[in-house]
Amino acid sequence: MNNFVFNNPTKIIFGKNTIEKIGEEIQNYGLGKVLLLYGKSSIFNNGVYNIITSSLKNANITWVELGGVKPNPVLSKVEEAISICKKEKVTGVIAAGGGSVIDTAKTVSAGVNYDGDVWDFFEGKASAKKGIPVFTVLTISATGSEMNPYAVITKENENKKWAFAGSLDFYPKVSIIDPTVQFTLPVSQTVNGAIDAISHVLELYFDGTVNTDIQNEISEGIIRTIIKHVKILINQPSNYESRSQLAWCATLALNGLIGVGSSGGDWSSHTLEHSLSVFTDIAHGAGLSIVLPAWMKYVYQNDIRKFARFAEKIFGVVNVSDDEKANRGIELIKKFFREIGAPVSLRDAGIGKDDIKKLTDNASIKTPVGKLKKLNKKDIENIFQLAF
Amino acid sequence: MNNFVFNNPTKIIFGKNTIEKIGEEIQNYGLGKVLLLYGKSSIFNNGVYNIITSSLKNANITWVELGGVKPNPVLSKVEEAISICKKEKVTGVIAAGGGSVIDTAKTVSAGVNYDGDVWDFFEGKASAKKGIPVFTVLTISATGSEMNPYAVITKENENKKWAFAGSLDFYPKVSIIDPTVQFTLPVSQTVNGAIDAISHVLELYFDGTVNTDIQNEISEGIIRTIIKHVKILINQPSNYESRSQLAWCATLALNGLIGVGSSGGDWSSHTLEHSLSVFTDIAHGAGLSIVLPAWMKYVYQNDIRKFARFAEKIFGVVNVSDDEKANRGIELIKKFFREIGAPVSLRDAGIGKDDIKKLTDNASIKTPVGKLKKLNKKDIENIFQLAF
Repeated sequence: MNNFVFNNPTKIIFGKNTIEKIGEEIQNYGLGKVLLLYGKSSIFNNGVYNIITSSLKNANITWVELGGVKPNPVLSKVEEAISICKKEKVTGVIAAGGGSVIDTAKTVSAGVNYDGDVWDFFEGKASAKKGIPVFTVLTISATGSEMNPYAVITKENENKKWAFAGSLDFYPKVSIIDPTVQFTLPVSQTVNGAIDAISHVLELYFDGTVNTDIQNEISEGIIRTIIKHVKILINQPSNYESRSQLAWCATLALNGLIGVGSSGGDWSSHTLEHSLSVFTDIAHGAGLSIVLPAWMKYVYQNDIRKFARFAEKIFGVVNVSDDEKANRGIELIKKFFREIGAPVSLRDAGIGKDDIKKLTDNASIKTPVGKLKKLNKKDIENIFQLAF
Repeated sequence: MNNFVFNNPTKIIFGKNTIEKIGEEIQNYGLGKVLLLYGKSSIFNNGVYNIITSSLKNANITWVELGGVKPNPVLSKVEEAISICKKEKVTGVIAAGGGSVIDTAKTVSAGVNYDGDVWDFFEGKASAKKGIPVFTVLTISATGSEMNPYAVITKENENKKWAFAGSLDFYPKVSIIDPTVQFTLPVSQTVNGAIDAISHVLELYFDGTVNTDIQNEISEGIIRTIIKHVKILINQPSNYESRSQLAWCATLALNGLIGVGSSGGDWSSHTLEHSLSVFTDIAHGAGLSIVLPAWMKYVYQNDIRKFARFAEKIFGVVNVSDDEKANRGIELIKKFFREIGAPVSLRDAGIGKDDIKKLTDNASIKTPVGKLKKLNKKDIENIFQLAF
């Protein structure tokens, strides 16, 4: 096991009728005026908007609002929000939504106290140390952003969908997860969230670190649990227990727990997927279900034993060689993605062979990519070809 | 899944050569003078004392010392430490040791700012809200106290070994876990630590809560990992990977993670064990290896399916009825305890049948005990009889 620091201060409030606590939680931080950030109409349809604003009123907290955060959230929205915060002298941000809204909120938090260009954090030209407090009310479980300091934002004019990792200050102070508000999600969003969470686990699982027994056990437990419950949710979207399990698994998948003692994860599939969603606006989860199995196939020989273990522990593959196990495991995760209605090839998503050059160029800006196998531009192209 | 709040702010610094960071971490809290609390001679023998004091000197932090904290730590030591803190105007505590030292430190932290009797917190007459910061340097993995707000202290003159749960303030601010300092532990202490950690998992696992798939998965993973690595450590006490796995598993066993969404655990075995150690000064882990299987046998019919699942997932018991599985699982955990050299009956520990009345009286002060099956005095006596 590698040395590690684990320090995750986010307070999670989980369960039914918990959103109404948001005002009190913000009050505990002594904040007077906050920005309420959200996406499109869902928080109006599922009642979340009303619960939040009532709670804020009861706690004597004033707010300004900004809606319209898109999936694959964009830098221009971040900049709009920052200028509102500065003008309105806002001292905290509530993100009511999923990963896109939360990532936007974190970037706003970093930008409010920074005189330079907020994109500097993504380029690695500056590091985000001091932010204003972020609170989240989660409406879709997927990215795990509710309990980590990461944000992924797209700079539209340069076709860059990049991530930054903030300091301790950028963990949300409080995240409220009420699984009931996810009852009304479209099936495709539930499925994409599940795939995103599984991919986070696998990015960390297949990074080549050895001696991670308990981390492997927890990772495998999360994946088995997600597979079980997303299948239930396709037919029973209002199944509270399955919503709860999927929600909590998605949080655990990227809150630092399973990454302790590892080399920090591989993240090639995410890098390649980000190029996909820059050009096609495909949902992140759907992009991952295309890229991840192709990446697995391309790199598995760098750690056959771990890929064989994956097949054993997730799908019960036994009594064949490790190479055969590894290959079956990859086929079976692909089959599972297909079963739950996700695309598993570029073709499935209507992306042509002609696009591969553009995707490869975009994903190769910062090569080498990955850890288990360090990918150069040719490798990246090969993986996109495999994914075709 | 039940509603829950998860909020664990402890910063864990894990790995080789990490203890030297203690001074810097305390400096981050702006503290000038701390109490350095420890047990007997081990921190002198394994070099931990020197590393801590050098680090404090480098960080310009002064300290007063108090050694002699015993296993099954006592109230009189807590009171001695509190009076030193008050007299010396100490603003933080370093616990260098295992659970006994850490629990003493937390209680000291609670007592320094409290004008009443610190035992009030254990009697439930007051709740510990504001403490002075506690930092830990862990030298034996067992109780999980390094990442939770709990403390167990014995009030000697009343034969009460009781627990208190503090507020957020009583999570250690920073806990440093360097597995190499555990290389020199006696085998019995390694074994007792492993049993303590397993029992924490099982207290939470068998509390009757349903719909806890991911919590079950993680719990089972922790137990399998502990079983694997404690067996290795008996023969290879300096195996770094096994020390690391056991250490991190013991922390995860009681840091709140596996208890989320449950009813808070059963804790009957702990209550009964505390009576054992009050009268016999048996190590906590050794007391648990006696009490836990007897408790399991006595209550399993209240949740046969879960006990059967335990046998399946931990020991691979299949193809028999659930009742048979449950019974085999209990036999197999007992067999495992015996294999690693732990006592599994009162007789093994030299405790006579005549003592059962005294033990029962002591464990029955606050009946009913437990959750899966609410135990009255007669039940408790029956369990001690079974354990005989």
